Amino acid sequence: MTKNVLVLPGDGIGPEIVAQAVRVLDAVNEQFSLNIQHESALVGGSAYDETGSPLPEATLAKAKAADAILLGAVGGPKWDKLDMSVRPEKGLLGLRSNLELFSNLRPAILYPQLADASSLKPEIVAGLDILIVRELTGGIYFGQPRGIRILENGEREGFNTYVYNESEIRRIGRSAFEAARQRGKRVCSIDKSNVLEVTVLWKEVMEEVAKEYPDVELTHMLVDNAAMQLVRAPKQFDVMVTGNMFGDILSDAAAMLTGSIGMLPSASLNAEGRGMYEPCHGSAPDIAGKGIANPLATILSVAMMLRYSLDAKDAADAIEVAVSKVLDLGLRTADIASKGCETVSTQAMGDAVLAAL
Amino acid sequence: MTKNVLVLPGDGIGPEIVAQAVRVLDAVNEQFSLNIQHESALVGGSAYDETGSPLPEATLAKAKAADAILLGAVGGPKWDKLDMSVRPEKGLLGLRSNLELFSNLRPAILYPQLADASSLKPEIVAGLDILIVRELTGGIYFGQPRGIRILENGEREGFNTYVYNESEIRRIGRSAFEAARQRGKRVCSIDKSNVLEVTVLWKEVMEEVAKEYPDVELTHMLVDNAAMQLVRAPKQFDVMVTGNMFGDILSDAAAMLTGSIGMLPSASLNAEGRGMYEPCHGSAPDIAGKGIANPLATILSVAMMLRYSLDAKDAADAIEVAVSKVLDLGLRTADIASKGCETVSTQAMGDAVLAAL
Ligand SMILES: CC(C)[C@H](C(=O)O)[C@@H](O)C(=O)O
Ligand SMILES: CC(C)[C@H](C(=O)O)[C@@H](O)C(=O)O
Repeated sequence: MTKNVLVLPGDGIGPEIVAQAVRVLDAVNEQFSLNIQHESALVGGSAYDETGSPLPEATLAKAKAADAILLGAVGGPKWDKLDMSVRPEKGLLGLRSNLELFSNLRPAILYPQLADASSLKPEIVAGLDILIVRELTGGIYFGQPRGIRILENGEREGFNTYVYNESEIRRIGRSAFEAARQRGKRVCSIDKSNVLEVTVLWKEVMEEVAKEYPDVELTHMLVDNAAMQLVRAPKQFDVMVTGNMFGDILSDAAAMLTGSIGMLPSASLNAEGRGMYEPCHGSAPDIAGKGIANPLATILSVAMMLRYSLDAKDAADAIEVAVSKVLDLGLRTADIASKGCETVSTQAMGDAVLAAL
Repeated sequence: MTKNVLVLPGDGIGPEIVAQAVRVLDAVNEQFSLNIQHESALVGGSAYDETGSPLPEATLAKAKAADAILLGAVGGPKWDKLDMSVRPEKGLLGLRSNLELFSNLRPAILYPQLADASSLKPEIVAGLDILIVRELTGGIYFGQPRGIRILENGEREGFNTYVYNESEIRRIGRSAFEAARQRGKRVCSIDKSNVLEVTVLWKEVMEEVAKEYPDVELTHMLVDNAAMQLVRAPKQFDVMVTGNMFGDILSDAAAMLTGSIGMLPSASLNAEGRGMYEPCHGSAPDIAGKGIANPLATILSVAMMLRYSLDAKDAADAIEVAVSKVLDLGLRTADIASKGCETVSTQAMGDAVLAAL
């Protein structure tokens, strides 16, 4: 049976890195006879420029029909002054919520070949392998009411609503416990339950979910302490589970611990395991069009896609092995450049992965 | 004229570290003829145990009358199951809001003597000196409505409100710009303006405030990127200004970059410069009563108090010099213990600072 992948290059470096990832997808498709088809569509600022909407109807329809989505990145200063309702980010948020991609898996892994790139001492990060499970379709990102209103005294007031119900918390909790079962069997749930009622409920529901997983250990940590512990001793964590906003902050901090955020893929899954796959880094408008961006996070996102949504574990393994080989060969894009290694272009990095396959 | 200081030891290690800080306060009071009087009161879990409230009326009345407040820390597992309305943290939050201590100054400074303690590479953090200015009496910490309600389908839903009006943003903005004028003349305002309307307003008002300070540079950064940049290259910052929740997370991350959070004081000021001073670290219930906690952050909080609220700059300088001397002598409490240095108790550290004065 044919599998359909929707490719969304997006903005900034998105098209460049996605181009290399698609070459890799095509190669394993052939090599492993996966019967994958793909087509492209517009999203983000480039979609706004063309259609007036960051998430055109046609793109959403194709996304709903696809078996999996590969996304580059969205956003850039060009669109920063637009009204919130049509900003590039709304395209991304619209995909997440319309497809109910509530479970965002963000691994923070240190590649031994890139240990030097970290700003942390080697002994603190060597062997780092944590997974952040971030709730992606609720919380303050989507809570109503929201907006900017004029008060009686004529002043403006901005407001957003941080809200979660039990089912939303329960399903992301289960995602985290399922993931932990495949790993170190430890979940640390992050909240601010000493101040925010919504996270008091979060903590309670996590306790309830934990009863379904007696083989997995649950602990709790306050978000401010979690930010500290990630800096102090990140290897203490196995799986961290948290809401949309805290997850945004902590997953980026965790990714940066490795010093090589250009290497980190992510998956956003719905209840049926269908998903959208994208690099953890952003659209990097400052280096867009220069041919120097690192395509490896996007290529590794293809591997995640094959594993989680397209039932093609062997092809996923092959890509990951190929990426590791290329690093062993000493090839690096500019963001992970290092003494004694060869700095190569986006395209040359794609060539190298293809050769290693 | 007599100056009145209210001392609030609080919970956990609070009483131990505050005891040493008060000895230091007494010493400089005498040495510099400052005419300072102090008395103590209950706050937090220990206040709840004694009176049923984490912020007894008597304490609040004394706090309002005082020229400055020295706080240890509040909270601990003993009170974790209490209803939100009487938790120890409510004592702290009640003081902040009742006294309108909207401006929280949290320096993250790396003491050269303690450079080893950082989990970051020396070249990344050597000479680190950033100031986080955190809004402390608004935002999601105090926003209404808030709570946990039962939905029509019988499920629970938790909700909090992230809200700021123009005046709240303007006054914390001015705090940050004033502070920057005394330092590197650069303010970086942290928001999530690509998603949250309340921070769109935040960003706009910061731009307006910036016009009053043409000698200070204003930049903006998204909170997820800020968390990354703190890990990657923290020295790029001078003053960071942000709301209550983001400030909680980022200031703890920034403090931990130094590896010696036991050294970092903080000030929470109102519009008249009256304030509450406390260490950045928490109540550390796990080591409470053992006599091993680091009193230096609290002692340095006394220095901040003398400088900002009690018009006693010389005494403040003297304390800071004394602390630096003690570090030069190689004395360390357990949290900053290091090869070749002598590990000393809370009390012995207090003795050493007194001797150095
Ligand atoms: C682009 C932005 C809306 C997005 C988010 O905040 O979720 C990004 O930072 C991410 O983490 O995927
Ligand atoms: C104890 C807690 C309520 C407090 C806060 O979140 O503000 C603490 O973490 C702090 O940063 O002072």
